[in-house]
Amino acid sequence: MTVKIGVIGTGMIGRDHTRRIQQVLAGAEVVALSDVNADSARAVQADLAPAATVHATGQELIAAPEVGAVLVTSWGDTHEEYVLAAIAAGKPCFCEKPLATTAAGAKRIVDAEVAHGARLVQVGFMRRYDAGYRMLKEAVDNAIGAPLMIHAAHRNPTVPEQYITPMAIHDTLIHEIDVFRWLLDDDYVSAQVVFPRRSKHAHARVADPQVVLLETRKGVRIDVEIFVNCRYGYDIQCQVVGEEGVAYLPEPLAIVMRRDAHLQNAILTDWKDRFVDSYDVELKDFVEAAARGTASGPGSWDGYVAAISSDACVEAQEKSGQIVPISLPDRPALYD
Amino acid sequence: MTVKIGVIGTGMIGRDHTRRIQQVLAGAEVVALSDVNADSARAVQADLAPAATVHATGQELIAAPEVGAVLVTSWGDTHEEYVLAAIAAGKPCFCEKPLATTAAGAKRIVDAEVAHGARLVQVGFMRRYDAGYRMLKEAVDNAIGAPLMIHAAHRNPTVPEQYITPMAIHDTLIHEIDVFRWLLDDDYVSAQVVFPRRSKHAHARVADPQVVLLETRKGVRIDVEIFVNCRYGYDIQCQVVGEEGVAYLPEPLAIVMRRDAHLQNAILTDWKDRFVDSYDVELKDFVEAAARGTASGPGSWDGYVAAISSDACVEAQEKSGQIVPISLPDRPALYD
Amino acid sequence: MTVKIGVIGTGMIGRDHTRRIQQVLAGAEVVALSDVNADSARAVQADLAPAATVHATGQELIAAPEVGAVLVTSWGDTHEEYVLAAIAAGKPCFCEKPLATTAAGAKRIVDAEVAHGARLVQVGFMRRYDAGYRMLKEAVDNAIGAPLMIHAAHRNPTVPEQYITPMAIHDTLIHEIDVFRWLLDDDYVSAQVVFPRRSKHAHARVADPQVVLLETRKGVRIDVEIFVNCRYGYDIQCQVVGEEGVAYLPEPLAIVMRRDAHLQNAILTDWKDRFVDSYDVELKDFVEAAARGTASGPGSWDGYVAAISSDACVEAQEKSGQIVPISLPDRPALYD
Amino acid sequence: MTVKIGVIGTGMIGRDHTRRIQQVLAGAEVVALSDVNADSARAVQADLAPAATVHATGQELIAAPEVGAVLVTSWGDTHEEYVLAAIAAGKPCFCEKPLATTAAGAKRIVDAEVAHGARLVQVGFMRRYDAGYRMLKEAVDNAIGAPLMIHAAHRNPTVPEQYITPMAIHDTLIHEIDVFRWLLDDDYVSAQVVFPRRSKHAHARVADPQVVLLETRKGVRIDVEIFVNCRYGYDIQCQVVGEEGVAYLPEPLAIVMRRDAHLQNAILTDWKDRFVDSYDVELKDFVEAAARGTASGPGSWDGYVAAISSDACVEAQEKSGQIVPISLPDRPALYD
Repeated sequence: MTVKIGVIGTGMIGRDHTRRIQQVLAGAEVVALSDVNADSARAVQADLAPAATVHATGQELIAAPEVGAVLVTSWGDTHEEYVLAAIAAGKPCFCEKPLATTAAGAKRIVDAEVAHGARLVQVGFMRRYDAGYRMLKEAVDNAIGAPLMIHAAHRNPTVPEQYITPMAIHDTLIHEIDVFRWLLDDDYVSAQVVFPRRSKHAHARVADPQVVLLETRKGVRIDVEIFVNCRYGYDIQCQVVGEEGVAYLPEPLAIVMRRDAHLQNAILTDWKDRFVDSYDVELKDFVEAAARGTASGPGSWDGYVAAISSDACVEAQEKSGQIVPISLPDRPALYD
Repeated sequence: MTVKIGVIGTGMIGRDHTRRIQQVLAGAEVVALSDVNADSARAVQADLAPAATVHATGQELIAAPEVGAVLVTSWGDTHEEYVLAAIAAGKPCFCEKPLATTAAGAKRIVDAEVAHGARLVQVGFMRRYDAGYRMLKEAVDNAIGAPLMIHAAHRNPTVPEQYITPMAIHDTLIHEIDVFRWLLDDDYVSAQVVFPRRSKHAHARVADPQVVLLETRKGVRIDVEIFVNCRYGYDIQCQVVGEEGVAYLPEPLAIVMRRDAHLQNAILTDWKDRFVDSYDVELKDFVEAAARGTASGPGSWDGYVAAISSDACVEAQEKSGQIVPISLPDRPALYD
Repeated sequence: MTVKIGVIGTGMIGRDHTRRIQQVLAGAEVVALSDVNADSARAVQADLAPAATVHATGQELIAAPEVGAVLVTSWGDTHEEYVLAAIAAGKPCFCEKPLATTAAGAKRIVDAEVAHGARLVQVGFMRRYDAGYRMLKEAVDNAIGAPLMIHAAHRNPTVPEQYITPMAIHDTLIHEIDVFRWLLDDDYVSAQVVFPRRSKHAHARVADPQVVLLETRKGVRIDVEIFVNCRYGYDIQCQVVGEEGVAYLPEPLAIVMRRDAHLQNAILTDWKDRFVDSYDVELKDFVEAAARGTASGPGSWDGYVAAISSDACVEAQEKSGQIVPISLPDRPALYD
Repeated sequence: MTVKIGVIGTGMIGRDHTRRIQQVLAGAEVVALSDVNADSARAVQADLAPAATVHATGQELIAAPEVGAVLVTSWGDTHEEYVLAAIAAGKPCFCEKPLATTAAGAKRIVDAEVAHGARLVQVGFMRRYDAGYRMLKEAVDNAIGAPLMIHAAHRNPTVPEQYITPMAIHDTLIHEIDVFRWLLDDDYVSAQVVFPRRSKHAHARVADPQVVLLETRKGVRIDVEIFVNCRYGYDIQCQVVGEEGVAYLPEPLAIVMRRDAHLQNAILTDWKDRFVDSYDVELKDFVEAAARGTASGPGSWDGYVAAISSDACVEAQEKSGQIVPISLPDRPALYD
């Protein structure tokens, strides 16, 4: 059975997912496209999905009978509206992060899905589909004893002028916030942020680097360095310390060379290359679940928890040095 | 356009390629199956391709009008016959190694394809599609100067009793024979084999380990250790030494751990895991070329050269210590 | 000129330093020995320094005219007294850590040395003499831009029952406290300690692991994991993040092996092996300075600052989660 | 007891060993110096050993009654004469390589030492004292099963114009020739040399790189790449493959950095830095044995076998591709 997909938002990521469905993955096809800029939708149709219909609005696309599942890859402010509409239509829906721009918005989606009574939403936390993180989770679950600490870093070579301090949480740390919950099967109870000496390469409106300290229900302590002007590369480091040993996230595959008086391998510099393979796996998971009328992987609840946790981290930035508590509502049974 | 594929031979590899086409890759479907054991073909049909027709013979399958391209994954002795039939039918054909069981057989396929006037055959040398080898080729082409030497090893943890000395060439070294030609864009002019002290873990009928020394037209010297009872793992090592530096084939992705008084990561022990991702890429390449009515990647000529080179290496085993010349016919223009 | 050394305290470390002076290093000899247990001193004399005189007390040894320099390797509670006596006698003095058991005691030594008007005291912070840390300091000074953060870990496989929580500072972190000041050419302004989930392998009287967060005058933020029942080995990790890059403390030399399905190298399990070479370099430095009538390397001021900083860290343990300020007196010009 | 040493030859290495004895090692002093250039000897005396006597000739120095042991660090052509004189005088003698410039000369030394009836000579094969090789030998003896193969490389960044093809054996491979015998506790039975494509960076009079293939009595097969214009660094690689696993010579201690889009560490470029620590250990061994009136470590027999083996390798260069047998006389019982 081929899953018939409608794509709302045909910018860079919407175009790329359309290519993925049309040219890479088995079992799905893009039958509908929509974008606030209709020319963009028509261009993607022409290039990648000539048989697809271009719809005037996302709502119309969701309502179209031939659309069996929805991809929401539009501007973040519109995510909540489209995901709610997809739930109302009972159609599986993949939504790029953020699920909603506020925790309250994410909660409305959770409530709608719980009312619907079955999972329909997958959120685009692609790291859970990365081969390296999956191997790390296997090691955390089976090889190093109970996890006690995580030491991590999220480094970008540089960021544009419009990147301001809270974006270090909402755009950068958000991936660690989700993936550590999943790695540890745990939730956060507090956050603290401290600011080291500022790098001379940081723009005026961003405190860079930052160190975020998180504490989980089980007592795991996490330190994450966020350094978005680190110069040398896009580099994601994660080390989990357990009662019996330590496990490291693998470095991306690279050619080791002896050259120019150095033993060396390249470090990626473009974030788009770091998890490129995980997008294929992520969408394959969506297609397979959608074929069964449901969703799996990171869902509405994870998007909601990420929003609450992020808000606490931003508050912890503002109250630098103070420990800010994080409290979560009870998890509905649907997400057990 | 969906490529309609017929699969001849539904053993382990034929079943796996069928799964790949049906469940993983975009752009193709399995419409026909055949196996010397009809129950096997029917089981694959039932499990993976219910819409496919089961044919009584490979020849019948090749002749079937709905079949647009052929996968030959049957017993090695039958490859030549089916590939020749596919060429005769003008249908793109993917053939697992060996292309033929003799160099003469491979030559007949080359001759038939040359007579046909266009490429139709891809041979299953999957290492050319491995991400690590592709990165290594990029380094050889661009980062280390002219290649001068390769130091390599092909190690298996163990082999069954029926594995005898010449199989170290035909079943094991064959992959290095192809992939080094491709890495270097070069061909072999001689081979020598020397036998180190035998491992006590080697069965009586296999000399193990062996060291194969190859020389290329451009003067590159290659040493390959073949060690099929190395105990510790399935391990493929390749180091290219150039005028400006040295490049290494990457180790497979693995979790580094500190545990039990060791800094360590697992080494694969099952060869099937080593290049598992490259089968997807290899078949994707076949499907995309077949959609255009042709074939790309390793072809008949490569299968023929591999057969000639392997025969020289087996002769070099028999004349241990002697340097055995390798001479190739001129390459037809079709393969330039 | 041979430096004539008296050794006070002939336990494990005093015996080992005597061996070092007698059998390894040029330029010095042990001429006097003393221990609260006279039999111990006589045994070291018999085994390693037959020409040495055994003195009844450390004070008598310090006063002996043939003694040109003093090694204080006795029980920690006695260090202050002997170091003060050596200063009073104007004799260069090497004192194993701690310089004194209280910051007030260390201050009395600083005051005495300042009154004397020249450096006479070296404290046994041997990490400053370790080849790896020296290479790291070179990188921090020249290769990674201004340092912004340090991520570090100090892990022991296990500790005895009598190891209690504050010993994680006084006996374990003390080495990081000194070596990071030296690496960064900086001092601490605050400390915070948080306690992750306790390892099930920790004894009842020790909170294990701990995370210590330090802030320096220049704004460098340091996180140090102390994990003294980590099981897997004695492991010292240190990573300095600068404006232009990251530098790592080298792992100790080890044989990498492929064996038992793992790529692996041994991690040390006995702390005594980790910095074994640095003791030779440390004492060589002492001997060379003593030959000139002075002392170099880590001195009284460093011992005093380490004591003040440690006391703040212990307070931070007691006030878990709170940031405890560290304030230092002005540094006397003698130590510039 | 202090060993009183006379040094013959006060060039770079003689001066360095004098410094080592005077300033680094316990238990020895330089009491006599001699050089064909008397000014050189006087300069070393003035700088490092003011109490030493400068002798007009090496023979006079050897005969001087205050000289208890001799270091021969003069020009290679003179080694044989001085070592024979030291044996005749019954004085322990450390001789830098080569022991003699011909196998016949080395045999005369062996014969003289055998006639003397006890070991007096240590040859300067310092790699046996390198910490890394010692760890590797431990692994070969205990951790990887019976050794079957060695894959090795000896690379220099560049060599001067006067370096000609046979020097790749006499000056470069000579170290591997000795250290592999010691690692394996074995001897060579044949050698073969093949010449890869020449590097464009090689001078006209040197074939570069070369691959030397050695076979031992126990059947171990060794391939050594010699590449003396490899550009990127001075790099010694050694991998021993045994029945149960593979062990690697450790890389020298180095700071790993993330910088400039690379994970990297420096490779040494000056051969003098590679085994710098082993000279201390080597001479310490000489001093300790000389204090007992004997010699240990690599001796005359090893120097003789190295000469015979080297001669065979040079013949194998001249007969490129041919396997040249190596036959050794029986080893005198003195060297068991």
